[in-house]
Amino acid sequence: MKTVSVIGDGQLARMMQPAAVELGIKLQLLAGAPDSSAAQVIPAVTVGDYHSTANCLAVAEGSDAVTFDHEHVPSDALSAMLDAGYSVQPAPSALINAQDKLVQRRRMRELGAPVPPFADISSVEDAQNFWNEVDGNVCLKACRGGYDGHGVWFPKDLTELESLVAELLEAGTPLMAEKKVALTRELSILVARNPSGEVKVWPITMSVQENGVCAEAIAPAPDLAPELAQRATDLGVQIATELGVTGVLAVELFAYTNDEGAEDIAVNELAMRPHNTGHWTQAGSITSQFEQHLRAVLDLPLGDPSASAPITVMANVLGADEDPAMPMVDRVVEVARRFPNAKIHLYGKGHRPGRKIGHVNLTGNAADAATVAATRRDAKLAAYFLVHAEWADQA
Amino acid sequence: MKTVSVIGDGQLARMMQPAAVELGIKLQLLAGAPDSSAAQVIPAVTVGDYHSTANCLAVAEGSDAVTFDHEHVPSDALSAMLDAGYSVQPAPSALINAQDKLVQRRRMRELGAPVPPFADISSVEDAQNFWNEVDGNVCLKACRGGYDGHGVWFPKDLTELESLVAELLEAGTPLMAEKKVALTRELSILVARNPSGEVKVWPITMSVQENGVCAEAIAPAPDLAPELAQRATDLGVQIATELGVTGVLAVELFAYTNDEGAEDIAVNELAMRPHNTGHWTQAGSITSQFEQHLRAVLDLPLGDPSASAPITVMANVLGADEDPAMPMVDRVVEVARRFPNAKIHLYGKGHRPGRKIGHVNLTGNAADAATVAATRRDAKLAAYFLVHAEWADQA
Repeated sequence: MKTVSVIGDGQLARMMQPAAVELGIKLQLLAGAPDSSAAQVIPAVTVGDYHSTANCLAVAEGSDAVTFDHEHVPSDALSAMLDAGYSVQPAPSALINAQDKLVQRRRMRELGAPVPPFADISSVEDAQNFWNEVDGNVCLKACRGGYDGHGVWFPKDLTELESLVAELLEAGTPLMAEKKVALTRELSILVARNPSGEVKVWPITMSVQENGVCAEAIAPAPDLAPELAQRATDLGVQIATELGVTGVLAVELFAYTNDEGAEDIAVNELAMRPHNTGHWTQAGSITSQFEQHLRAVLDLPLGDPSASAPITVMANVLGADEDPAMPMVDRVVEVARRFPNAKIHLYGKGHRPGRKIGHVNLTGNAADAATVAATRRDAKLAAYFLVHAEWADQA
Repeated sequence: MKTVSVIGDGQLARMMQPAAVELGIKLQLLAGAPDSSAAQVIPAVTVGDYHSTANCLAVAEGSDAVTFDHEHVPSDALSAMLDAGYSVQPAPSALINAQDKLVQRRRMRELGAPVPPFADISSVEDAQNFWNEVDGNVCLKACRGGYDGHGVWFPKDLTELESLVAELLEAGTPLMAEKKVALTRELSILVARNPSGEVKVWPITMSVQENGVCAEAIAPAPDLAPELAQRATDLGVQIATELGVTGVLAVELFAYTNDEGAEDIAVNELAMRPHNTGHWTQAGSITSQFEQHLRAVLDLPLGDPSASAPITVMANVLGADEDPAMPMVDRVVEVARRFPNAKIHLYGKGHRPGRKIGHVNLTGNAADAATVAATRRDAKLAAYFLVHAEWADQA
């Protein structure tokens, strides 16, 4: 079969390995450390630094495609791999839209995709002007490098905005600002596209963020008007196609109530790799996002993204402030005993407060409100126990 | 989490790796060669020989459980690991029933499990007596070491039986004989049991053998009377419990028409490891047999074995007499294009006629006869193309 080089050693790279094993694909990993999450489970590991062009070129050798589990590989390394004739997926020209929020916003506006009002912030004066333009509803963002709520600020007054902007620009951080959306919930479009142009879209996913980090995903998104689901699906296809994305694309959406009182959407972020809001596909779709990503970057025909269960819930396992004394394996025992249908995923990572160390997938047999609520409750109870070694529903 | 040592380097060990990755379990492999099917995908590999007690002890080091992907580990090595304090799962006292067909037959009779008439064959005279007893309907079996039709003979007359028996006993092959069953189809009970005694049974599976090798499995078995399904399920629980099996147990069954004209069952073989007739669980059950095996040998609570699709079909990919010129990846492309819902599994093995090199799982949306037939047809078309690079339904 084929060989895929993966740059990045976190859980996203790790979770490509089961799909690779099944399809007979060989993975080659560039890992920062020999015991990192992905390096624990993939035999062919190069230990190195993704900032190093030499290391990137070394891991690309012999590959049929090079891909990533994050967006932070420098342009120089990407260009060097392209120049050396490697198949870099997604291509840097697409990836830039996931690397730079201002580039993305401009491109979305060009495509006619719905985005909040935004501005380039190159000076304190730009920030002042934008503050006035949007009546102080300002979200300030670092153009590059943010994730999981890092690199995003909601200044409470103009003074805070001014000092933030002054400080960040002084530190050399390129900035943009956008109008805060009065969001009602968050949705996510998961799309895959291969270099031949085939595109497949999973059912639209609802996600719940806590402190800027994904806590829960539910798919198909409950109570979503079919017309809006179709519009979101079409938007996903359009963005993947016009940006020339290859592999998995996650389009994070703000949902809000529009002037007509109906649910509407605007684009928030793009990610070009398997995404936290797509982990439910491991248990609830014919084709998981990890399998689809590998198929896509190798330009194989894409798999069926249909839901295989009426409802699937993913709950993240995020390191507690203090790690309980009970060993993780004993927590797994308790959760497995109470929820024999829970699919527990652990990433082989040590404890750190707030760190993503695993997730739980749970499917429900029906999509009615009671089943959705029960499935969400159980998935969250399971994830909570894995974190806290306590049942949240027991005194 | 925990560490499991696996002795045996074929596709069964390979397919434990996705489940191990998900649950955060570390696998340590004893492999005959560094490029064997399982060794390609598991980082911690000891290259050695499972006949060697020293090699078995070496791979067991640091494990929470030792298990197998075949039944051929010698008793000496098993005992040595037990004596050294390792958790060997299944225990040798259970495993002997999967290693020695005569031991198994005697034990099944003790338990009251249905088995065909059988006899120990220690001489040509024993064979002659049994031939007369069952009116020449004799199936001769090597007590140990057979698989996939090897070690099983159907002599067409007494002379052939006599010469076979003389020759095999002369070569030191322990033998047994049993009455040939007029089988109508083959069924399989897949069970898992952990050392604490928890037992779970998957839906009863129908399998189709060609030339003594599993070609296809369908689950839940179509047209199975609920009473018989229940009886088979109870039988699986009884065998697993009374034999003290840990991990996955497959009870291969003969189905036949009894004197009352109803479908009935008799035990054929036992296997104590994930089994070819259970590969469908990867796509069609909440808990795959590979995940369940790992949970069981570690004495974790077992997962839900319920079907997650109305019908699932597995078709084996067996090496053709001559390997077609079309590279395997191009065959995968064609199959993936025609069947986007096909789950293609490849074992990383080179071509050899009749060799198990992969399988295809396909789920259907309903369990009516037409859907079952269509799902079986499509799974077999997909597997046939992977073997022959031709569509069996096209001229």
